[in-house]
Amino acid sequence: MLEYIYRRRSIRKFHADRPVEPEKVTELLRAAMAAPSANNRQGWRFIVVDDRETLDKLAEHYPNADMLFTATLCIVPVADMETFYYQQDLAAATQNLLLAAPELGLGTCWCGMKPERQEWAHEFFEVPEGWWVFALIAVGYPAEEKPANTWYKEENVFRGRWGARREA
Amino acid sequence: MLEYIYRRRSIRKFHADRPVEPEKVTELLRAAMAAPSANNRQGWRFIVVDDRETLDKLAEHYPNADMLFTATLCIVPVADMETFYYQQDLAAATQNLLLAAPELGLGTCWCGMKPERQEWAHEFFEVPEGWWVFALIAVGYPAEEKPANTWYKEENVFRGRWGARREA
Repeated sequence: MLEYIYRRRSIRKFHADRPVEPEKVTELLRAAMAAPSANNRQGWRFIVVDDRETLDKLAEHYPNADMLFTATLCIVPVADMETFYYQQDLAAATQNLLLAAPELGLGTCWCGMKPERQEWAHEFFEVPEGWWVFALIAVGYPAEEKPANTWYKEENVFRGRWGARREA
Repeated sequence: MLEYIYRRRSIRKFHADRPVEPEKVTELLRAAMAAPSANNRQGWRFIVVDDRETLDKLAEHYPNADMLFTATLCIVPVADMETFYYQQDLAAATQNLLLAAPELGLGTCWCGMKPERQEWAHEFFEVPEGWWVFALIAVGYPAEEKPANTWYKEENVFRGRWGARREA
C-alpha cells in the first residue's frame, strides 16, 4: 500500500550515459520544496550539478561519494542557518526528493556532509556565510535493483513512555 | 503525478472522537522506519501516545501544540545522539510518516521540539541520557481540508554554484 515509501533505496550504481532530463530535475525540486519547514520559512536553496567534470571532482573529494562517478546529477541542498530547525527542514526536503525519484524512474543516494568538509564545500560552491551545505544527493538512472523495504522493528516502539511495550 | 508528496499538509484540527486504529499506527511506524539513516544505524525510537489525558497535557505544555487537543494520537520520535546526523535521520523518518498518513486517511502536524524543552520532555517520557526527544507529531482524522501544494520557487535553484541561474 505504501509502496511509494518502501521503494526508496540507496542506489550506488547508475547509467553514466543517461542524463536526467531537465523537466525531471524540476519535478525533483518541486517535491523537495513541498516539505514542511519551521514557521514555513523555506530556508533552503538547491544547487544543481549536472556536468561530468564537477561530478567527478565531488566523487574524488568525498570518500563516501563514489556513486557520483556514475550519477549524472547531484543536487546540493543548502540551508539558512538562522533557525535551530534548519537540519530538520532540509532533511524533510531531501527525503521528499528521494521519495519522488522512483516515480520518475530515478534512483538516489543521500551523502551526508560532515562539519569538517563545510569549508571546502563553501569554497567549491561559492556559498555565502550563514548558509550550510547540507548534503550531496546523487541522482541518476539506476544500474542496480533493490527490493522495496522497511527496517521496522517492534522493539523500537514504546507506548506512553520510554520502555513501556506496545501491543501491536 | 507526485500527488503522494503534495497532499501532505499541516493539519491542525482533527475529529477528537475518532481514534486512529492500531493497525494504522503500525503502518505509520513501518513507513517511518523505511527512512535512510547514516550508516543505516536506525538510531530511532518512537513513543506512541494515544490517551486523552496525556495528549491534553502535551497540548497544555507546548504553546504551539494546540492541535493535540483534538488529535487522537501523538507519535514522539526519539533520537540516539551518538552521530552528528541524528537530526537528519529522525527528520527523514518523520517525513516518511507524514507522507504515509494521507494514504491512510489521516492528517498530521509536525511540532518541533526546542532545546529548552528537552528537560521537561525527558522527565515526562522517562527518556534516558544520550537520547533526544525530537518532535511531537500530532495525528488524527482531519477536520479541515487543505489543497495539495508545493512552495517551489525557481529563484531557490542555482546551477553549478551559488548565485548561478538555471534555465528550467
